[in-house]
Amino acid sequence: MQTHAESLLARRKKLLGPAYSLFYRDPLHLVRGEGVWLYDADGRQYLDMYNNVPHVGHCHPTVVEAIARQSSLLNTHTRYLHELVLDYAERLTSTLPAELDVAMFSCTGTEANELALRIARAVTGGAGFVVTDCSYHGNSQAVSEITTEHSTPDMLPPHVVAVPAPDVYRGVHRGEDAAERYASHVNQAIETLRRRGIAPAALVLDTIISSDGVVAVPSGYLTHAARAIRAAGGLFIADEVQPGFGRTGERFWGFELDNVLPDIVTMGKPMGNGYPLAATVTRSDIAEAFAKRTRYFNTFGGNPVAAAAGLAVLDVIEAEHLQQNALRIGRHLSAGLERLALQHERLGDVRGTGLFLAVELVDDRVSRKPATEYADKVVEALRDEGVLTNTIGRHDNILKLRPPMVISRENADMFLAILARVLSTL
Amino acid sequence: MQTHAESLLARRKKLLGPAYSLFYRDPLHLVRGEGVWLYDADGRQYLDMYNNVPHVGHCHPTVVEAIARQSSLLNTHTRYLHELVLDYAERLTSTLPAELDVAMFSCTGTEANELALRIARAVTGGAGFVVTDCSYHGNSQAVSEITTEHSTPDMLPPHVVAVPAPDVYRGVHRGEDAAERYASHVNQAIETLRRRGIAPAALVLDTIISSDGVVAVPSGYLTHAARAIRAAGGLFIADEVQPGFGRTGERFWGFELDNVLPDIVTMGKPMGNGYPLAATVTRSDIAEAFAKRTRYFNTFGGNPVAAAAGLAVLDVIEAEHLQQNALRIGRHLSAGLERLALQHERLGDVRGTGLFLAVELVDDRVSRKPATEYADKVVEALRDEGVLTNTIGRHDNILKLRPPMVISRENADMFLAILARVLSTL
Repeated sequence: MQTHAESLLARRKKLLGPAYSLFYRDPLHLVRGEGVWLYDADGRQYLDMYNNVPHVGHCHPTVVEAIARQSSLLNTHTRYLHELVLDYAERLTSTLPAELDVAMFSCTGTEANELALRIARAVTGGAGFVVTDCSYHGNSQAVSEITTEHSTPDMLPPHVVAVPAPDVYRGVHRGEDAAERYASHVNQAIETLRRRGIAPAALVLDTIISSDGVVAVPSGYLTHAARAIRAAGGLFIADEVQPGFGRTGERFWGFELDNVLPDIVTMGKPMGNGYPLAATVTRSDIAEAFAKRTRYFNTFGGNPVAAAAGLAVLDVIEAEHLQQNALRIGRHLSAGLERLALQHERLGDVRGTGLFLAVELVDDRVSRKPATEYADKVVEALRDEGVLTNTIGRHDNILKLRPPMVISRENADMFLAILARVLSTL
Repeated sequence: MQTHAESLLARRKKLLGPAYSLFYRDPLHLVRGEGVWLYDADGRQYLDMYNNVPHVGHCHPTVVEAIARQSSLLNTHTRYLHELVLDYAERLTSTLPAELDVAMFSCTGTEANELALRIARAVTGGAGFVVTDCSYHGNSQAVSEITTEHSTPDMLPPHVVAVPAPDVYRGVHRGEDAAERYASHVNQAIETLRRRGIAPAALVLDTIISSDGVVAVPSGYLTHAARAIRAAGGLFIADEVQPGFGRTGERFWGFELDNVLPDIVTMGKPMGNGYPLAATVTRSDIAEAFAKRTRYFNTFGGNPVAAAAGLAVLDVIEAEHLQQNALRIGRHLSAGLERLALQHERLGDVRGTGLFLAVELVDDRVSRKPATEYADKVVEALRDEGVLTNTIGRHDNILKLRPPMVISRENADMFLAILARVLSTL
């Protein structure tokens, strides 16, 4: 007889089609979430060490209440005046350097990056983009062209050039001058664009370079890379979808880990704790130059409910000291992982800061050969033990730890104990 | 002293930048909505004859309750199994012809069209698109390339060719064979693409051709046009963001007004009554051919809250017989507008069906010269009298009437009375 999950799988295949994929060999059928916990249809509890969209915890009552309240009052668009979108823009830009004072709203990180590319093209007159070589920035046509995670260099369109991610564990440059050396590839990329007759519009970087699996970017890299693109007349776009909103613990924004001021900052996933909300923030002079060429409107972007959700998320981050929690629990998790690495040779490297940690799994520490299959086994075994994670990096061998920001020390200890057990038995 | 609205305007200019625009010379500051009514900060009431996003009425309690309830239970993504997205896909596809049985979800109409273009390119191998010459399909780069409302033909990229909108009031073809004659331009566009060495991927049509101001498409046009693109190996993409979900009263979908089966249907705005929700629906053979080339995922698209909102909208449309209401009130409004046209020479044409009506304003009925300024005055005067509308068409001279679907006969009579007064005094 068909189980309930099997019947869901069959319906799903038929109704959503085969282009959709699922996590895990035995996919999860989730029905409820609360804080760091997710529950499946059989009442089984999972510790969520993966999902960053529920930034302040699954179904946080403050956010739920804000969404419910504003949905019952008014939900319309930005062609009428409304206070909430302005209150939110004010709160949001107050978390950023003073120069970044204009916010434009959309619904997804893809849309935020679409707008950023459009602004960059409009204000520079250029068309070329420089990105890292295993990047993810979104799924629209223009944004997937600068997404290189499934491409080799020869598959990229002429206006996109990929540079090596600044990976000091596995990459081409290590040692003290790695940041400068990696940044010098941006100059080479600009040269490549020039040879093709294309002026650079922007360098686009996830500031912790997460899909490449870097997570711990060498100090100075962002500064040097931004300087290179600016010297060539392009902008520096910081994609903060992953590091933003305090996730790194040390700073509210990823670019602040380095001494650099982006021209444009894009953000998405965690902003509305699951309510579709994204933004493109820039300087007023850039916004003015952009507005001379075109208008901007997004039907659902910055609507009063989205703004209410966004404000509630900022309220909770502040009231529950979640950035500080990320720093504290992140350090605790890091230390625990380092201890595990003393016993387990296959934990090649532990890196990251706050609540975005990466554990590089290798066959052995001398060859550093990526342990792709082993990583998959670890992810599946953790799932069976009630912990949700996944992998990143070109070789899918890097364990990605990115829990909701409300994770406690007890939750972290539970995770470390389960991971220890999994590593000992695999 | 600065009024509250002036202070909002100043904050807005500073915080959102100058690329954002507002409706009305004296912009509205709205604070509450209910059914067909909107209320400003001074408690003034406005009859909403414009907004189609609040499809089943502003802040409909059934939709608000569904969003609040599911937000408090679980909001996660489609890489875990969840029943609601399947229930919704089932309900949604059951409103469509049996062949269109696969639904893929996103957050905005732009994203739905992005995915449709991507599917069309992938399964046809072509890259060319045919659209009407004052179209609006969205704001991403790829979708704005097929959006012609702000372009002249020479501004379009080589892979996009615009055909004249099938406008039998103002356009190049009138009379009995207008549908075939307009559709023949699709063949010419395909030829143009071929001369440029570009194979056609799709014909993309808003099936009531609303931004062009057509609204009443001559019978047979969609069928002939779809036949032309298919004969050339391209797909027919029906953009149902405007006509879908029963708005035309006669049918649930705009393409059903003609005898045609699209290959892909895209939808957005009204789906979630304001919750960001959009979909791309296609045949399973197309979905399979697409999945052989690539995967599809959208972080917020088809999440449990979006699905709950979408289901609630379908529930309300059914329970409150809103398609029938659209037909009934649409006829009543049409008849009333026709009566007004008997007295007012500047109402050049009244057309449309259900709750998407167009009133073409002209200098006089002989020249049919578009009365752009006059239309703007009518819109502003209606706003001052407490009625919200706007204009469409290349000349912005066509009054667009597109109220929430819950509009009553009394509301319609009130609108007609106010419009009569405005037309008599302007």
